[in-house]
Amino acid sequence: MATVCRPSVVLPQHTISQEQMISELDKLHPFHPKRDLAFKMIRNTQVDNRHLIMPIEELTIHTGLTHRSRIYEREGRRLSTEAAQQAIENAGLTNNDIDMVVVTSCTGFMMPSLTAHLINSLKLKSDTVQLPIAQLGCVAGASAINRAFNFCQANPKANVLIVALEFSSLCFQPDNVELHSFISGALFGDAVTSAVVRGDDLAKGLRLQNQTTYFMQDSEEYISYDVKDSGFHFTLDKAVMNSIQYVAPIMEMLNRREFNAPVADNDFVIFHTGGRKILDELVKHLELAPEKVNLSRESLSQLGNVASAVVFDVLQRQFDAPPTDGSKGMYAAFGPGFTAEIGVGVWQ
Amino acid sequence: MATVCRPSVVLPQHTISQEQMISELDKLHPFHPKRDLAFKMIRNTQVDNRHLIMPIEELTIHTGLTHRSRIYEREGRRLSTEAAQQAIENAGLTNNDIDMVVVTSCTGFMMPSLTAHLINSLKLKSDTVQLPIAQLGCVAGASAINRAFNFCQANPKANVLIVALEFSSLCFQPDNVELHSFISGALFGDAVTSAVVRGDDLAKGLRLQNQTTYFMQDSEEYISYDVKDSGFHFTLDKAVMNSIQYVAPIMEMLNRREFNAPVADNDFVIFHTGGRKILDELVKHLELAPEKVNLSRESLSQLGNVASAVVFDVLQRQFDAPPTDGSKGMYAAFGPGFTAEIGVGVWQ
Repeated sequence: MATVCRPSVVLPQHTISQEQMISELDKLHPFHPKRDLAFKMIRNTQVDNRHLIMPIEELTIHTGLTHRSRIYEREGRRLSTEAAQQAIENAGLTNNDIDMVVVTSCTGFMMPSLTAHLINSLKLKSDTVQLPIAQLGCVAGASAINRAFNFCQANPKANVLIVALEFSSLCFQPDNVELHSFISGALFGDAVTSAVVRGDDLAKGLRLQNQTTYFMQDSEEYISYDVKDSGFHFTLDKAVMNSIQYVAPIMEMLNRREFNAPVADNDFVIFHTGGRKILDELVKHLELAPEKVNLSRESLSQLGNVASAVVFDVLQRQFDAPPTDGSKGMYAAFGPGFTAEIGVGVWQ
Repeated sequence: MATVCRPSVVLPQHTISQEQMISELDKLHPFHPKRDLAFKMIRNTQVDNRHLIMPIEELTIHTGLTHRSRIYEREGRRLSTEAAQQAIENAGLTNNDIDMVVVTSCTGFMMPSLTAHLINSLKLKSDTVQLPIAQLGCVAGASAINRAFNFCQANPKANVLIVALEFSSLCFQPDNVELHSFISGALFGDAVTSAVVRGDDLAKGLRLQNQTTYFMQDSEEYISYDVKDSGFHFTLDKAVMNSIQYVAPIMEMLNRREFNAPVADNDFVIFHTGGRKILDELVKHLELAPEKVNLSRESLSQLGNVASAVVFDVLQRQFDAPPTDGSKGMYAAFGPGFTAEIGVGVWQ
């Protein structure tokens, strides 16, 4: 029906360690009254390193939305093509086999979107369906898998190319002094990931079996952007930590429906790396063996939270430690709304 | 399989005639060297009237992206709820029957998007699938119908709520002096339209039969936004007029595949009102009787080009002059990429 093939992961060349980031924030706001608390919280994120599209010394000066949009477009065009081409090869397909292209990206805005760019740069077919998704934030990667799954259900043997491109650093606002802004500035990273969902299942990967979505009433303020003259201003409310207890039962319900067993019995899980606490909450409420989320923790530590790109980075790590055929797994991501997109599949 | 039910159309309270708009542009740029040519071209658009979210005297002063984003959000929340509630009633459904909500809007940006707002304001089910589409411009309305069609193919009996919300006036840039900017400022209008695609076909409307999409290689510059400190700057290249000759054969192919007849033999057409010339080109290349596009011309004259909202406005006009059961029709919209989304259906 639909198999997510081996993802590609393309990381921008610049990197920053967490101690370097703390030092940069200290230079920007040396007399901040919550300086010590902020740095303690940042050290607590378990993010050790991140990749950035530009060197940090260029990001701590706000050059304006016009300039940042140009960087987004230039690097977006370059890196999306590279990631997509690799993902198509990973799937054992050629560019001419792609029927739909989904691009998820909440950290910049282009119209025509990168879906149009990819059809041109990869010379995809002229009847390729485009689905650019800009407003689902971190949940968009799993959402793209679920929409690709729907598309393959409607069009058996279709192949869907997904590119998740996030340049979170272009949303860094050096003048923002709220505590949550400091944390976001040290949590989110840049990455481009891509994968093909292959309708004929003739490739190794995660064979999709079932899916669901969950929306939490009256929680729009948990994760949000303000769009201002200076670009996107991201707000992360700590109340978002309370959401996992409500989504966990939904995840259990889907898993039982498909596998007649709790999530804890699954062989693997591919979870969004919302942050250390989100992963802790998942382990707690799903009663998971802590090592089950090791790949998500590894991704968080090495890349930070790369928003919609996370789920494909974690899935790629799973390909490097492949489960045996028939292994049962779940993927899930969480984002603004508050929204969760969840699915279950079998490794084949 | 999937029927587009009667749309709702909600128009902002402020209006402006074309002569008033010419007078406003004259006040802004009294010594513009192409003043006479610009006004001649504007009078040639056949747009007589448009609705606006704010009075014109507030739009000709640029209050900045921060302020415009607030207006977009406030009015977007209010008018999307009103339009959606009416569309659900038109479909003979209750809010609890909706399984997916699609919001198309390229004239403002929110995260969480209006899909989240609608789930909250209409108390939709907690497993409602969200699909916010921001980057497909004018083609997004027809794209939403086609994605809803796919979703119903994958989930028979599902009901998809679509809201197309465009406040083009919030992208008016009073300082832009290019000729195409003058034309855009006098062509695009504000409107909110909505319709439900009902999977069980148990309502009057356009029963969807088949669909396709068409992307024109290397034409990204035909229709585009630049995202700047002062917001979205829209560019419309006159080369877009040449696109219809290439998309017409694709439309014919789809129509022949489904109805074994040329588009000219269809009983009705629901076409995007890209502009007078786009409609002329469609009539010419599809060899249509000129009156076939009367409803599109009416919409263009009374509302201007309301981007992704057009297709539902024209469809609502078709409901007011309903074809007999079994009548054959085509819908099509065109937008950035250059991209066309096309479909055929039967009136039931």
